[in-house]
Amino acid sequence: MFGFTFVTAIGVVAALLTTVAFLPQALKAWRSRSTQDISLAMYALMATGNILWLIYGLLLDSLPLIGANVVSLSLTTSILALKLRYR
Amino acid sequence: MFGFTFVTAIGVVAALLTTVAFLPQALKAWRSRSTQDISLAMYALMATGNILWLIYGLLLDSLPLIGANVVSLSLTTSILALKLRYR
Repeated sequence: MFGFTFVTAIGVVAALLTTVAFLPQALKAWRSRSTQDISLAMYALMATGNILWLIYGLLLDSLPLIGANVVSLSLTTSILALKLRYR
Repeated sequence: MFGFTFVTAIGVVAALLTTVAFLPQALKAWRSRSTQDISLAMYALMATGNILWLIYGLLLDSLPLIGANVVSLSLTTSILALKLRYR
């Protein structure tokens, strides 16, 4: 579809960072069982957005969008579940 | 460039949600002055990712990518600054 250029590499690293970023927050909430400072609204909006990005990626047949949002969605719903459990 | 279809509308709403999601977290941290449960690593990774997305958007001349990441970056760096100030 396109050559793997320097520009593409920047986009790939950007996508990896903004996806993987949720992992340390999920681990922190899991270990500490404390989520008072975490915003419920943020993770409700983020998980809903991830679902729509995933639908968009499926409709466009975009593997990067699908992959990134399957990972993000699993992490943001985990944080949302931890927030609801340990508020 | 492309017609504003139903599929595009899903992508636009997805982008708005995953961008605006950071706002309630920034407001919560600002008001409470309490950020103990917020992961520093998450916002360091997310802000770095937003900078790379912004560079990628500028290189591609993509207004949606630029706009979304200017907003996200301002919110994620605000949360990062609040985390560093009130840990």
